[in-house]
Amino acid sequence: MSLIIVGSLALDTIEAPAGSVAEVPGGSSSYCSIASSYFSTAGIVGIVGDDFPDSVISLLKDHHVNLDGMKIAAGKTFRWGGRYADNFDDRTTLFTDLNVFEDFNPILPDTYKNADYVLLANIHPGLQNHVLDQLESNAFVVLDTMNLWIDTALDDLLALMKRVDMLVINDEEARMLTNERSYGKAAKKLQAMGPEWVVIKKGQHGALLFHQSQVFSVPGLVIDEVKDPTGAGDTFVGALIGYLAQSKDHSFDNMKLAVVFGSVLASFCVEDFSVDGITYLDESELETRYDEFVIMSQF
Amino acid sequence: MSLIIVGSLALDTIEAPAGSVAEVPGGSSSYCSIASSYFSTAGIVGIVGDDFPDSVISLLKDHHVNLDGMKIAAGKTFRWGGRYADNFDDRTTLFTDLNVFEDFNPILPDTYKNADYVLLANIHPGLQNHVLDQLESNAFVVLDTMNLWIDTALDDLLALMKRVDMLVINDEEARMLTNERSYGKAAKKLQAMGPEWVVIKKGQHGALLFHQSQVFSVPGLVIDEVKDPTGAGDTFVGALIGYLAQSKDHSFDNMKLAVVFGSVLASFCVEDFSVDGITYLDESELETRYDEFVIMSQF
Repeated sequence: MSLIIVGSLALDTIEAPAGSVAEVPGGSSSYCSIASSYFSTAGIVGIVGDDFPDSVISLLKDHHVNLDGMKIAAGKTFRWGGRYADNFDDRTTLFTDLNVFEDFNPILPDTYKNADYVLLANIHPGLQNHVLDQLESNAFVVLDTMNLWIDTALDDLLALMKRVDMLVINDEEARMLTNERSYGKAAKKLQAMGPEWVVIKKGQHGALLFHQSQVFSVPGLVIDEVKDPTGAGDTFVGALIGYLAQSKDHSFDNMKLAVVFGSVLASFCVEDFSVDGITYLDESELETRYDEFVIMSQF
Repeated sequence: MSLIIVGSLALDTIEAPAGSVAEVPGGSSSYCSIASSYFSTAGIVGIVGDDFPDSVISLLKDHHVNLDGMKIAAGKTFRWGGRYADNFDDRTTLFTDLNVFEDFNPILPDTYKNADYVLLANIHPGLQNHVLDQLESNAFVVLDTMNLWIDTALDDLLALMKRVDMLVINDEEARMLTNERSYGKAAKKLQAMGPEWVVIKKGQHGALLFHQSQVFSVPGLVIDEVKDPTGAGDTFVGALIGYLAQSKDHSFDNMKLAVVFGSVLASFCVEDFSVDGITYLDESELETRYDEFVIMSQF
């Protein structure tokens, strides 16, 4: 596999102003792998229970996701439930039932160990370190993390940051890690912690890409109705690394495009529940949306 | 005059983490007219007291600001004082001494009445309506307003909005006026209230330009140290209308450039106290900063 993604696979229950859904595909790996599939085939490493629906497996296979690293264990699949407030500013976690995910120990199949691109989607940084230990290649590693690990596993996270090429993080997490409110200063501190590339996600305000002293800003698309923001960040980073794995070009100009295509996919993601916004898209839909980003930001 | 600006002239006292200044040039017209001067000469309509410093008059004249519409009245100039919190999220007003500004009744000199471009900077919308009543031309009118008038003079403001071509407003004010959190929906409602063009300012996240169904996003420049954000919005709109008055081109593509140059000047503004960041800039400084916006947003 050229690209591998290590993260969670879950069944989500989501309550939002536009409606509710239950037992739908969720977890970082679902979003990341489907988003990456428009550019590059991904192999995922994850664990599900024996109740994991065949329909979701079919959906992943339809998107050419390699499931050699997906373990089906006796027991129930990880479940997560969340409720969004009217304004989407607040998300309340309704439940987090880890189930088989509690004992997740990511083991790379031999065919994954020479990956050129590795996405460490959001799981415990100790496990993310363990994934890198198994690699036999000099892969380009992208790390996603979350506030929980900054609070509870900071040492593991800091050790991990020295081993990755790109950190993707949201603005609140960047502030937590660096104590800096200025994006520029925060990015410099994050780069000094290890990753050569830093992406700070700003939700509806888009994202900033930092490399050495260069900065690129991609806008957030103006979307009339957000239905479900779950997984938008995972979708962003999945498409980003998929684009990189396809192009194999780490120039700043190409990284800009990776960030734009991350935003293109994320803009589809929030328009529907679960992964519904990013499944079975055709090339012309991606091109039309890309053109919207061009019109919106090019002068 | 091709371009006239109607707003306040003040002496400010500013306390910020990086330092404090007292009795420095302030008021919307100071920022707007100096920012516009890099593109187009502006005539201002305003009132000051007989204590208004000669040094500030010289500064405005150095920037080719026409002062025919500036009345010097017996009494003291408008004074405003504000304090910024460490994170710049909060601004506390220390004092607002209107002084001679309390009786401001904007009267256009005859030489102003055929203006092609009119900037109604932030004053009471009743007075802004009165300015338009005196015009003898079919000018392109840009309106700036603030939360105070939305709260206290909404009828005047709504009547005024039917008479202007462009509304420039910040995200919080847009939400107050429309009850919409989606930028797209808010902009559509604002356009339905009158102005063909709507600009929503988002502080460090830049600004959005709306026209019919088109949207343009300009990023906020990543600035290591903000010294004083006072007047950044006025600087933005001053440069924007100055650029329009120079180019006289109302195509969407040219409006994009007007918004970019607004952002260029605003980025200089916040780097120093009062108007110090935007005075005596030379062309190469503007070009270098413009190039930073190009690198930051073009892909």
